[in-house]
Order: sequence, then structure tokens, then C-alpha cells
Amino acid sequence: MADSYLHAPTLVRATTPLVQCLTNAVVMQFTANALLAIGASPAMVDTPAESFDFAGVADGVLINAGTPSAEQYAGMERAIEGATAAGTPWVLDPVGVGGLAERSAFLRRAVDKHPAAIRGNASEIVALAGLGAGGRGVDATDDVADAVEAAQVLARRTGGVVAVTGAEDLIVSRGRVSWLKSGDPMLQLVIGTGCALGAVTAAYLGATQDTDIDPHDAVVAAHAHLGAAGRIAATRATAPGSYAVALIDALHQLDRNQLANLTHLREENR
Amino acid sequence: MADSYLHAPTLVRATTPLVQCLTNAVVMQFTANALLAIGASPAMVDTPAESFDFAGVADGVLINAGTPSAEQYAGMERAIEGATAAGTPWVLDPVGVGGLAERSAFLRRAVDKHPAAIRGNASEIVALAGLGAGGRGVDATDDVADAVEAAQVLARRTGGVVAVTGAEDLIVSRGRVSWLKSGDPMLQLVIGTGCALGAVTAAYLGATQDTDIDPHDAVVAAHAHLGAAGRIAATRATAPGSYAVALIDALHQLDRNQLANLTHLREENR
Amino acid sequence: MADSYLHAPTLVRATTPLVQCLTNAVVMQFTANALLAIGASPAMVDTPAESFDFAGVADGVLINAGTPSAEQYAGMERAIEGATAAGTPWVLDPVGVGGLAERSAFLRRAVDKHPAAIRGNASEIVALAGLGAGGRGVDATDDVADAVEAAQVLARRTGGVVAVTGAEDLIVSRGRVSWLKSGDPMLQLVIGTGCALGAVTAAYLGATQDTDIDPHDAVVAAHAHLGAAGRIAATRATAPGSYAVALIDALHQLDRNQLANLTHLREENR
Repeated sequence: MADSYLHAPTLVRATTPLVQCLTNAVVMQFTANALLAIGASPAMVDTPAESFDFAGVADGVLINAGTPSAEQYAGMERAIEGATAAGTPWVLDPVGVGGLAERSAFLRRAVDKHPAAIRGNASEIVALAGLGAGGRGVDATDDVADAVEAAQVLARRTGGVVAVTGAEDLIVSRGRVSWLKSGDPMLQLVIGTGCALGAVTAAYLGATQDTDIDPHDAVVAAHAHLGAAGRIAATRATAPGSYAVALIDALHQLDRNQLANLTHLREENR
Repeated sequence: MADSYLHAPTLVRATTPLVQCLTNAVVMQFTANALLAIGASPAMVDTPAESFDFAGVADGVLINAGTPSAEQYAGMERAIEGATAAGTPWVLDPVGVGGLAERSAFLRRAVDKHPAAIRGNASEIVALAGLGAGGRGVDATDDVADAVEAAQVLARRTGGVVAVTGAEDLIVSRGRVSWLKSGDPMLQLVIGTGCALGAVTAAYLGATQDTDIDPHDAVVAAHAHLGAAGRIAATRATAPGSYAVALIDALHQLDRNQLANLTHLREENR
Repeated sequence: MADSYLHAPTLVRATTPLVQCLTNAVVMQFTANALLAIGASPAMVDTPAESFDFAGVADGVLINAGTPSAEQYAGMERAIEGATAAGTPWVLDPVGVGGLAERSAFLRRAVDKHPAAIRGNASEIVALAGLGAGGRGVDATDDVADAVEAAQVLARRTGGVVAVTGAEDLIVSRGRVSWLKSGDPMLQLVIGTGCALGAVTAAYLGATQDTDIDPHDAVVAAHAHLGAAGRIAATRATAPGSYAVALIDALHQLDRNQLANLTHLREENR
């Protein structure tokens, strides 16, 4: 159902999904605070000695290769194995894929391990699908509309959901193409909003597993939650320092009416 | 003296204790800002090449095994050796002890090296004492009241102070059991408040060493400082983003009257 | 020209310099947000596998040895080689030089590789030049005025610009000695303001390369931007939590008039 995503925030708050984040050091604090704000519980368990076992306990796992040390790569591989063994949904955020050889090889191998969802900007999704060169550093240089084919390629390859973040978000899975309007340009002036969205996506996938909300709608809900909060924050702050504070506040306070009023979902018939 | 903890904040501000933090990447920034706010000086010197020597210069050391890489474990062991050799008080924060095998083994070995204080939530203290299984991820699933015996076991084993953070904080040392009422539930919605409390405890132990405030009262003071600031912040903010900002402000601004009015200490006669 | 630094912020905003930061985990988030706020684009690419190549793509590189693991040292060496090969200006921030042997050796070797700029507090600059013992932890114990000779020694040795941050900032290069008055004491109560200034300096050097603003004025501009923002923030906040938020806001909002009115530059005739 197209508006089933509106029910998902309540589920997250009711179940407090435990989200294991293997992510880069730049955004760990913001990611953890975003998860706490939406009602999830963060745990940054990312070493190879611990990540396999913990992925069996967690409700969702985020793999974000932002600043990968050799030990973190090993930790990520073990976490993916642990999540796969336990049936824990995991999200792949292919930060910086394209220009950087070792990272790109790791991320392309990860695609073959069937993430429940992939989340990136247009340039990253295009590069991950092997259809383009990637962005400049971590910035997108492609438009979301240019990433539809790449998202579909990845969705077919993984059997999962692929989300492309941009002015309008694109969420693709086998047989479905959704466009979500929400968010605010100010989100790009706060480090970690994209990375936190990957973690929020893992929380939503965890909270909705074994419910009648399917993974596609769970990913839509995650993007809608962050996007609506981004709009609320823009009404309260006009510069990035106070905007970041207002964003965490809004993630926590967001209610169902705001979620419905501040997001617009459009399903393409294909 | 039961209210000697009220004098301690002035001592911290007057002496600017240098606190070496070996802690997890998620909370490093918040921990450093909390230390600066109370008048201490943070230094995150955590590599094995540097941690031994620095522990001899520092006034207090925090060992928090939140996201331990192999190199950080080695750095922690060297820091403990350095602190022990120099007589620098060090605090052990057993984040996540229980479920995770390697981390738990490290933390239990650390107990035998006589930390001046241990600080954790109820589930962590129970698990560290070997009396229970630990929490879910990093969340407590036990009540503070259930951790009294475990805290006493650890206090006897280390000869130090053991603090259990919760709705009411418990501080135990040989012959003393104190209950501190302060804080606010919102503290749990900001990542790193517990970890920062470990660092604040190290600052208080450092600032009060060789004074007539004993370690038990220093640990009470650290918890009272954070708890009172948590109450002040709750009067200024109703959502976690702005609450985190208000908390740092309140840590900095807290005066003796507020500390006395916003905390309640009860000593058990045992 | 003495006031050419007033033109530089516009250049940064117009060109969005990509700044590669190899910096410590404590300040990564704040540094990234500061760069975004001034209109630059941060990328924390710091592993040896990636740092060489990325330094050829970046517009500026920051080397800050705050919490160096063995892998990060290797990453820093590769980044310096990559920046040198590509002609990318790089900034050295010698955090904690002096007391810590391995770090000091690394930092002194780095000086010989000709950073475009060095930025530190007085104690760090004195210790880096081999003229003193360094500070206490990361705090300066020397006055800026005591670091003039050390800054000149380093400027001669590198052929670059040397900046000493303090109550009044000192910027030195071959034949020029500038004193910049701006900033606010509250800056020292927020972790990472000094480290972020190193990254901002790299952004300014990158944005002004191949323009008629020379590196000395670019470094002055970076310090003026942060210093003026620090003054604005002090009019909006009286405690460090809200001050940090106001500082990021002010970095973003600062206009040319504010920059001119809130900074005072004095050139010494030598």
C-alpha cells in the first residue's frame, strides 16, 4: 500500500531496534544521535573479533565504508557474514565508490552478498552499478534521474531495495519505482545526514521485519522520516550549526501528521 | 563527610586536571567537550607508542573499551601500566561487557589491575562481576538495585570505587554505599553521556588526589555534576538535539547552589 | 596587499575546494562541519591505500597527527607524497609535538617535506622548531610573542607560511610578519576549533592557488574567517555548548563587512 510507510515510525519507537553500525569515524556521533532520536538503539560494534556475533543479535546492520582501515574492512566482512547467517537485514552505503580502487572493489563484492538495501547519492549508485565514474570526493555530480537504470540494475542483482538520495529521493525494487519529495538543501551542509540515513534505513528494516510493511515501504519510511525532519528543521534554523540541532530534535518529535504533510510519494507505473 | 562532594567542582576548575581518554570513536568529541565544560583538559592519547608515557603526565586516565581495535587494546594496556607506575588514578568503563567474548576477557583482566573507579550501567556491573549475562548491546536490562552485590564484589576486588549509573546512581566502596538522585531520562537520548561521565570521574579523581576529598566523594561529585547539569538542561530543552547543547552549557555554568539543590545524596548504613 | 585577505572568503564559496583531512578522530565531525560551513567540501580519506591518489584530486590537504595509529601515519606519509607529486598545497598541524617521542619524530620529518603552511599554538611551533619542550598535553604554555623566532625558522626551512594561534594570531612567511587580532577566549572551550582552523587553512590555500591572493594572505584569511566567526558567536552564546553551534552558524553566515570589522591586521616592518 502506498501510504503504509506512514505507520512505520510508530513501529520503530515501539520496538527500539538495535542497529549495529560499521561506519566512518566522521559521522559516528551524529549517526548514533539520529538513531536515538528516532527511537532506535545504536551500537558501533565494528571489529572483526566482535562484528560477526553481534550481527546475529542486532535487528539491522549498516555497512558504510567511509574511512576504512584494514581492520574495519575485515570487521565489515565478518558483519555481513553474521547478518547473512542470522537473517539480519543489512544496508550498504557505498560512500566514495568510483574513484578509489580498493574501496570500490570491496563495495562491488559487497553488492554480490545481497544487502537488503543500498543507499547512496546518484553518482555513487551509478558507479556501484558499473555505469559511470563516481562523484568528486563524496559529492554527487549526477542527477537522481540519471540513476534510475543503475538503481534497477542493482535491485535486480541484489533482490533488495535501492535508494538514491537527492533533491527528490528515488526508491527502487523489483517491480516498483517510487519518488519521494521531502528534505531540504540545508541537509547537505551538515556532515553525516546521508550516512545517518543509511543507519535509519537499517533501523526501519529491522523494525518492520516480519510485519506487513515490506522492505520497499520500510526504506521509503526511513527516507520520509529524515526528509520530513529536514523540512521541520528548516523552519527553525537558517544556518547549519543550529540546523543540525533542530534536525535531531525534529527526528525525535516527528508525528504522523507531519510525516504525511511534509512528504510526497509518487509511484511510477512500470 | 557526606556533603564534601559539593566542594569538588571548584577544585576541578582551579586545577584543570589533564585527562587522558582511551575511549571509543563515537563519543570522543562529546567527551572532550564535556571535560572542557567542567574545567578539565582532555587529551585522547591512545596509541601503544604514546599511552604509557602520557599516563605518567596526566592527572587521570579513562579506559573505555567501546570500539576497540587491536591497536587500541594494546594502547589501553600500556596506559594502565603507565598510570599504575606513576600513581595516576584511572577509571574503567566496561561498555558492552558480557555478550562480547574478547572485550569481556580484556575488561575482566583490567579489573585485576586495580582501577581507582569503575563506572557502568547495572547490566555491565553485574556482568563484569561475573554475576550475570550483560545487557542488550550497550543498554542496561538490569535495575541499579540488582547491582548492589556486584558493585560490592568489584569494590572489594579492586580496593576502589564502583559506580552504577541509572535512575538513581549507586556509588560503592569498602564500607560505604551511597545513593545519588539527580539526572534526567533525556540523558539516555544523547550518545556519550555515560561515557563522558567516566571521563568526568577521572577528572574528579585527578583533581582531588592529595586533598581531603576522598575517592568515594570524588566519584559522587562527578556523578552529581553531570546529574545536576542534566536536570538544568531538561528545564531548557525538550528534545535531544537541543538537550545535548544545553547539557554542555549547564556542565560549564553549574554553581554550588545548583549542585546542592539538584542532587540528593543518601548514605546507607551497612 | 594588506587587505587582500578580505576577498578570499568569496573565492572559497565560489570554488568549493575539496579538502582531504587526515586528522584525529576527536575532531573529524567538527572539522567537516566547519569546512561545509565556509563553503568547502570535506573528505576524510586517510588510509594508505587511498590517500596518495586522493591528494592528487583534492584542492588542499590537512595533516593533523592528533591520534595517530600506525596505519594513519602510513596514510599521512602517502598523502604528503601524493600532494607533493600533484602540487596540492598541504597544511601541517603539529598537535602535541614535543612531549611524545614517536609523534615528534614524524612531525619533524614532515617539516622537511615542505608543507605550504604550518599551524599550531605557540608551544607546538616552538617545539617543532626545536627551540623548546612543547606544551602540556595539547595546551600551549608559551605566549605567541615567544614563538616569533621559531615561526621564522620554520618558514625559512619550509619556504611556506607558519601560523601561530593565540590571543593574537601570528602569521609569518619569508619577509613578512603579520599579527591578526580577532577570535574569542571561548574558542578554547570547544574541542576542535584549532584543528578545524588547520582544515580551513587548507581550504583557503586550495581556493586561492593560481589567483592573485598569495599563500600568506590566504592563511591570514583563514584565521580571520574563524576569528571573526568566533567573535560573532560570542555575541550570541555565553556557554560552550551553544557557542559551538553559534560558531558553525557564523562561519556560514560571515560576510565581508563583518570580516573587516571584526578582525584587525597589523604588518610588522622587518
